[in-house]
Amino acid sequence: MLPAALLAACGTTAADEGQWQPHQMPQLKAELKRIGIEIPAERIADLSKHPMSAIVSLGGCSASFVSPDGLVVTNHHCAYGAIQRNSTAAKNYIVDGFLAKTRAEELPGGPNTLVYVTDKVENVSARVLQGLENVGGRERHEKIERRIKDLIAECETDKMYRCAVPAFHRGLEYYRIRQMMIRDVRLVYAPSDMIGNYGGDIDNYEWPRHTGDYSFLRAYVGKDGRPAEPSPDNVPYKSKDFLVVSAEGLKAGDPILLAGYPGRTSRYKLPSEIRHAQKTSYPAQVAEYQADLDTIAAATKAKPNDEVRYASVVKSINNRMKKTQGLLDGFARKDIAAIKDVQDAEFRAWYGKQQGVSGAMLAELDAAIAADMAFEQEQFAWNVATNSDLLKSARTLVRLAQERQKPNAEREAGYQDRDLTFIKARLTRLEQSYVGSVDQARFVAGLQRYTKLAKRPQGLDALLPAVADVPALYANTKLGDTATRLALLEQDAAALAKSDDAFVRLALKLNEMDRALENRAKEVEGNLEKVIPQYMSAVIAWKKSQGKPVYPDANSTLRVTYGTVAPYSPRDGISKGPFTTVEGIVEKHTGKDPFNAPAKLLEAVRAKRYGQFKDPVLGTVPVNFLSSADTTGGNSGSAIVNKRGELVGLNFDSTYESITKDWYFDRDITRAIHLDARYMLWVMKEVDHADNLLREMTIRYPKK
Amino acid sequence: MLPAALLAACGTTAADEGQWQPHQMPQLKAELKRIGIEIPAERIADLSKHPMSAIVSLGGCSASFVSPDGLVVTNHHCAYGAIQRNSTAAKNYIVDGFLAKTRAEELPGGPNTLVYVTDKVENVSARVLQGLENVGGRERHEKIERRIKDLIAECETDKMYRCAVPAFHRGLEYYRIRQMMIRDVRLVYAPSDMIGNYGGDIDNYEWPRHTGDYSFLRAYVGKDGRPAEPSPDNVPYKSKDFLVVSAEGLKAGDPILLAGYPGRTSRYKLPSEIRHAQKTSYPAQVAEYQADLDTIAAATKAKPNDEVRYASVVKSINNRMKKTQGLLDGFARKDIAAIKDVQDAEFRAWYGKQQGVSGAMLAELDAAIAADMAFEQEQFAWNVATNSDLLKSARTLVRLAQERQKPNAEREAGYQDRDLTFIKARLTRLEQSYVGSVDQARFVAGLQRYTKLAKRPQGLDALLPAVADVPALYANTKLGDTATRLALLEQDAAALAKSDDAFVRLALKLNEMDRALENRAKEVEGNLEKVIPQYMSAVIAWKKSQGKPVYPDANSTLRVTYGTVAPYSPRDGISKGPFTTVEGIVEKHTGKDPFNAPAKLLEAVRAKRYGQFKDPVLGTVPVNFLSSADTTGGNSGSAIVNKRGELVGLNFDSTYESITKDWYFDRDITRAIHLDARYMLWVMKEVDHADNLLREMTIRYPKK
Repeated sequence: MLPAALLAACGTTAADEGQWQPHQMPQLKAELKRIGIEIPAERIADLSKHPMSAIVSLGGCSASFVSPDGLVVTNHHCAYGAIQRNSTAAKNYIVDGFLAKTRAEELPGGPNTLVYVTDKVENVSARVLQGLENVGGRERHEKIERRIKDLIAECETDKMYRCAVPAFHRGLEYYRIRQMMIRDVRLVYAPSDMIGNYGGDIDNYEWPRHTGDYSFLRAYVGKDGRPAEPSPDNVPYKSKDFLVVSAEGLKAGDPILLAGYPGRTSRYKLPSEIRHAQKTSYPAQVAEYQADLDTIAAATKAKPNDEVRYASVVKSINNRMKKTQGLLDGFARKDIAAIKDVQDAEFRAWYGKQQGVSGAMLAELDAAIAADMAFEQEQFAWNVATNSDLLKSARTLVRLAQERQKPNAEREAGYQDRDLTFIKARLTRLEQSYVGSVDQARFVAGLQRYTKLAKRPQGLDALLPAVADVPALYANTKLGDTATRLALLEQDAAALAKSDDAFVRLALKLNEMDRALENRAKEVEGNLEKVIPQYMSAVIAWKKSQGKPVYPDANSTLRVTYGTVAPYSPRDGISKGPFTTVEGIVEKHTGKDPFNAPAKLLEAVRAKRYGQFKDPVLGTVPVNFLSSADTTGGNSGSAIVNKRGELVGLNFDSTYESITKDWYFDRDITRAIHLDARYMLWVMKEVDHADNLLREMTIRYPKK
Repeated sequence: MLPAALLAACGTTAADEGQWQPHQMPQLKAELKRIGIEIPAERIADLSKHPMSAIVSLGGCSASFVSPDGLVVTNHHCAYGAIQRNSTAAKNYIVDGFLAKTRAEELPGGPNTLVYVTDKVENVSARVLQGLENVGGRERHEKIERRIKDLIAECETDKMYRCAVPAFHRGLEYYRIRQMMIRDVRLVYAPSDMIGNYGGDIDNYEWPRHTGDYSFLRAYVGKDGRPAEPSPDNVPYKSKDFLVVSAEGLKAGDPILLAGYPGRTSRYKLPSEIRHAQKTSYPAQVAEYQADLDTIAAATKAKPNDEVRYASVVKSINNRMKKTQGLLDGFARKDIAAIKDVQDAEFRAWYGKQQGVSGAMLAELDAAIAADMAFEQEQFAWNVATNSDLLKSARTLVRLAQERQKPNAEREAGYQDRDLTFIKARLTRLEQSYVGSVDQARFVAGLQRYTKLAKRPQGLDALLPAVADVPALYANTKLGDTATRLALLEQDAAALAKSDDAFVRLALKLNEMDRALENRAKEVEGNLEKVIPQYMSAVIAWKKSQGKPVYPDANSTLRVTYGTVAPYSPRDGISKGPFTTVEGIVEKHTGKDPFNAPAKLLEAVRAKRYGQFKDPVLGTVPVNFLSSADTTGGNSGSAIVNKRGELVGLNFDSTYESITKDWYFDRDITRAIHLDARYMLWVMKEVDHADNLLREMTIRYPKK
């Protein structure tokens, strides 16, 4: 691969690693200046100021305010739940799209559509870690968990906030993040999924891409300005800040900033962990996904209703499988473990020369990681053996009842009062993707695969049902019924213990093993949490000695990344990107889903009605573009702003070759895929006539 | 598709249509100057002067002299026969490559390795066409054939020449081309096919490409300087001219000239002919190729020896099928018939306004073409029904015996004394790719497919053998034996008529039908030859009225095309080329054929031993590149020269998207694939140590 050379022949590029905490931005001043960002680094660091104060989380997705009246723009796939729940056979907003021409027409987003506005970030490391220097294992893990729960409870005394205390660098630092959780969020506008999901699963992780992956929501609050339960009396949230939308667009080489909530990365893993993933855990995971997909396919064959019910499950497994396979392909393409070997050896050589260090920390690190990798295989076997949604529901019910016997503050995280609405939503949502015969087939197939695994938790075999006995379990359960599941949510531990529901009984039977595995996980995790902060602290000192700042792995908290609009070379002799154009939609159009663009759109392209959204270089309207910014899952919907902080696009995916970036950021090939704001504005203007929203937003048009 | 826009973002390009007769070059003066060619157009027009006097034909391939001692460079695949015939299990030059370190070590190329030096080109249109203004049909065709034979005989009185009188613009003009045919041609140097055919059939018609498709031959003549039969007494041919080889290379946007012998194009076909190809003849042809391949595969299954024997047949059918499918894909991608409709309508509108014309010519044209398309389907059926190599051999023998009853000058072209050595070579060569059981399976399968065709020649059904009788044919023939075939070559018509060989008898039985079809073909062809020159004459006048010169369709005669080094966009959002690099070889290397690069090469790349062949922009050695030059089959091995006329590469293929160029030159996507001379020189230097040849050639190295 020789992308640098190829790209040299075709413009320049800079791939820029780092998902930075906003407060780190001043350390990157020189870099930001080099690529051409005009907003002062100190300003980006301030969450109370523009542009960061316009950035929000949807919980799993990112978004931003684009008007002073709480108008939020995010990805179409992030608003999909809200679109789906408002759709009926008669009014199919998925296919037809939806546009509220007035505020009164805006539709409820439902309980899963939430807007989180990050409001305060405090370093609480001292309070979390005090006195734990020499404490490891389960004791450490549980002590930290308890302190975090207290910190959260303290923060959530004002009910308008939702708080979290995530670990950074796996426990070196803890920040308490306070977010205002807006619970009345309404669907304002979504294009047809023939635009918003053009290319569908076929184009997922692929380039060239032509997806109009955007939708608009609006945050509503009570008349007092505080978050409130959904109500017709609520009023649009007066956001402190919003982003100006630029129709000026970008060209190859232009700088961008991207702000959002990336989920999880593993950039600081050791070579041994990469090899374990590459040789053991990922191949097993891919085989497991495939086997489960095969089971679902066989169980739903010739049953269109069942197939539809499992469509989103299949989509989700497929997506995870494609990502895992992409990681394996990436490992095969580039020996990342070998690269990490070199880095690790350099680090260890430097570390050995430091004053007052012994080999103890590194030995402890290696041992803790080895224990983690070994235990991970047992956890995998447990998951294979319990691949039933009914069993999962039963386990949740049993666990919750047991936790409820304790005072709220002492309960396991995830089973506190603050978690109840989420648990209830999960138990309710199952009805959309559950069919008894399919769940039974998955459970049976999982049990059969489990028996072939080498690393099975000791004692588990005896607790699991025989395959022959599984039909009887399904015959003797009512957990497939939503009302029953929700009713059981109210039962206490004693009542549940007497239940004759077959799956509740199975969950009770497995409970001791379930807890034992959880405690072992805490032991392993606690040991990692003790040594990894020491290791990361040394790595940070090492990098500092080279003048390089260090960003923490992604942990679903607000981060900023920067980069430039840039093509890449997936193979010698080919260059991809940086732009696609509306003509490419026509080129891909087959008239069949997922390449079935609306006639109005095709007609506008063919007539070259580009309006003010025509790119001067491309001579047409751009659709998607690539940048070198550092993103991962959770960054969906992230605002992309230009050098002046104006919204020029939305992040929504990465190229297939980029998937390994979760482990290693390869600057030559890592590219994020973005929606060009000009395409969004063009569809709004020429296809969907969303003139009310175009008027509501502040749009900067190019000078004529 | 929006390649113009994409390419605009990444340098400029000019795709340049036209396979020009050298004498036309002065008409293109301005164009050549525009792209930056420094050689005067008048000089390129002169076949006796540099650089055109260095360009030669190998009969089916193109080549050029690169030393004053008859050293010829061409494609590896053009020298393949010579490499193969010298290889044994012990000395496998295909796998190991071959390098003669001295002239004495050079190996005989065999009877099929010939060098043709074009020496004289005369316009003989008047002599061919005199008095035929109103003559059409078979009479016209046969009169022209007879005149051509006389012109050739007159030219070949000096036995050192081979002459031909090809039609240009399908009969508007005829040129007599005199070529010196050098019959002692030796293999000098060929890299391993792991270099020369890297990527093999998988990469055929594909980009990115990494093929070192070059080999060296040397022309030998008698001591008198005249072509002679192969003999140790022969001496290297003192070529009047040769090309300097440039190691300076090219960069994107640089101009090139390409000179060679393109085989056949159909650029002036009418929309009706394109539709016929698209809807009828090509789909039938692809199905036929696939059916034949399936038959061969089934008949050779689990018989490795038979499989090897049919390997080159399969390769050839696959290649034709890929090309035909590429044409169909191209038609599906771009509605060429519709483009031609517009052009045709414009032409007809212009033509209708000319003085002294009636609609008669256009009506006659449409009728002649309709007759041709109808007859073509019968010919297709005949070919399907006679898909046996033994039957083809028998038909050749019967026909030759019959023609020999006439004086030489009156015999059908292809059966004259001058053709005998070629016929003999063909009948001999069959032994390399013939197995009785496979031929029988192909014949039977063809007969079965034939019965399902709608347009069968009247009366043919009754003449063909029943499928059940085919085994008896193979049991009662000795034509599978080469000695028998060659012995029958000597028998006269009377003797053959008495033969009891089953295939000779079948050929005799089919002979009347064979001749009838041939005569109908001549009738159809003669009518086309009457009206198409009138049509082309009008087209040329029309183009002239727009200030545009017109080049004739390719006809295996010497042509010049020009263009620039340029990438292209096969799809919106992707750019391909213009260069690949040696790093791409490593990237593709799997260790398995056809991606099995020699260890020495891999080692040199990994050690970055680029020497003087490193491209300053790419930072490494380029392997292949793309240009916008207008090429087709027959251009294999064509010299590519830079603005000063120095050899910078060899043509060897086209991209898959370019295949439709045989019908329509689409400047946005048509790209020829070339070997970069720097890669050739680098392999010679770093991998094969062909220092003797590097010394023999005149190489211009870049200034340091």
